[in-house]
Amino acid sequence: MSSFGADTAVERLQPGSYRGTLASGWDIGGNANGGYMLAIAARAMATETGRADPVTITAHYLSPGRAGPVTVDVRVVKQGRRFGVASAAMCAGGQPLLQVLGTFGNLDRSDAGLERIESAPPELPPPDECFGHRVENGAPALFGNVDLRLHPEDAGFASGKPSGQLRVRGWFRFGRDEPVDTLGLLLAVDSFPPTSFNANLPVAWTPTIELTTHLRARPAPGWLRASFSSRFLSGGFVEEDGEVWDSTGRLVAQSRQLALLPLN
Amino acid sequence: MSSFGADTAVERLQPGSYRGTLASGWDIGGNANGGYMLAIAARAMATETGRADPVTITAHYLSPGRAGPVTVDVRVVKQGRRFGVASAAMCAGGQPLLQVLGTFGNLDRSDAGLERIESAPPELPPPDECFGHRVENGAPALFGNVDLRLHPEDAGFASGKPSGQLRVRGWFRFGRDEPVDTLGLLLAVDSFPPTSFNANLPVAWTPTIELTTHLRARPAPGWLRASFSSRFLSGGFVEEDGEVWDSTGRLVAQSRQLALLPLN
Repeated sequence: MSSFGADTAVERLQPGSYRGTLASGWDIGGNANGGYMLAIAARAMATETGRADPVTITAHYLSPGRAGPVTVDVRVVKQGRRFGVASAAMCAGGQPLLQVLGTFGNLDRSDAGLERIESAPPELPPPDECFGHRVENGAPALFGNVDLRLHPEDAGFASGKPSGQLRVRGWFRFGRDEPVDTLGLLLAVDSFPPTSFNANLPVAWTPTIELTTHLRARPAPGWLRASFSSRFLSGGFVEEDGEVWDSTGRLVAQSRQLALLPLN
Repeated sequence: MSSFGADTAVERLQPGSYRGTLASGWDIGGNANGGYMLAIAARAMATETGRADPVTITAHYLSPGRAGPVTVDVRVVKQGRRFGVASAAMCAGGQPLLQVLGTFGNLDRSDAGLERIESAPPELPPPDECFGHRVENGAPALFGNVDLRLHPEDAGFASGKPSGQLRVRGWFRFGRDEPVDTLGLLLAVDSFPPTSFNANLPVAWTPTIELTTHLRARPAPGWLRASFSSRFLSGGFVEEDGEVWDSTGRLVAQSRQLALLPLN
């Protein structure tokens, strides 16, 4: 199994100019996971802004990424007291893969301040009673490095019995149980099967146009719980809203993506 | 009253380089509304990409905008078959106000295709039975050009009786009843009072860090209905989720912003 930290490393060639590698093992059918690609870009942006954590980050997906070298060009557009804002472009062989805009800061502050949470982590059976993808049974390579355990009620699509609910809930950790940092959360919010798999719709795949993630805190060690849902399939688009909670029951990330809804 | 179309006009000086004006009358206490500023940038991006409508657009707010001239520099990062992706920077006197990333396309397609909507427009009393801000009574200048009518249950904050619910619902139209296009929707999602006004919290204002809007369709003529809610006040941040529905009951926009939660 691979290390997320090693496989998202970047090298700074000169100010604003980075080199990285899309490693194999983070892909589905040869196309790198969108959250994994974004984590590489975000690492370059964090380095360039001198801020450890994305606070809110948006990626627009331009072309699928295949294993191999990539460049990341980062431009810092503002450095403030608490935050730095940067824009970035990831390219492979001169072709743009990803355009990113993010505000970076430091999420290790222990003073949470005011708290009012009108939601809760999803109720899940223990990981061993959930549905796990097995690479040895033909699951995509990604699931060798990402250990997903889906709520059995939401995993029916895998056996041809979709729940009918636009919802997917489950556990997330890295395959080698490497701690998940805020860059790892960018992968977590893009690793689960699309909610439309459970929808009894003639839809095979929903390509992501744009993915925005808000990061609220660095996760505590241990399994993460995540929940994804969609409410609006219309006009050829669907949104997917995600929440990720850490092992202490704290909300650590909120995501929303806009995806295309091509019919089979 | 001012025209939104005229007050968001841009002039193309050369490829990628635009000039516009932050007009007075779209501000709160002299600071231009963030959705209004974004609409100007989006008009430049729509022009540069040759696509009428933002499909998903994200703005990171860097500095408050005051009335006066602005520049918008647009860079097209991809032109595809259906969509164009562009990044833009709005500056005033060389100071960055706004950094924007958006995917643009054409939302006039009548073939809605697959529809599955798990929500509904908010139930609202007729506009005349709702709460309206009155500039002559001291409401901010914005409310001379934007005609908001808040659900009476959500307007208690205006008389010192916040509802306690992190929710604001109401009607939206332009003051002169100019039709609202997809650029106007960018203003609509940023015109309502913050949900935190209803929260019984020691919070005066919640500066927007980032605002993302998904546009699903061009609105039909008539009043728009909107609903905003927040579920997670934590770590010094709050998200605010919005939905805008047109007079035919169609979802036309979905928004989410991340705002700071400074304590009084």
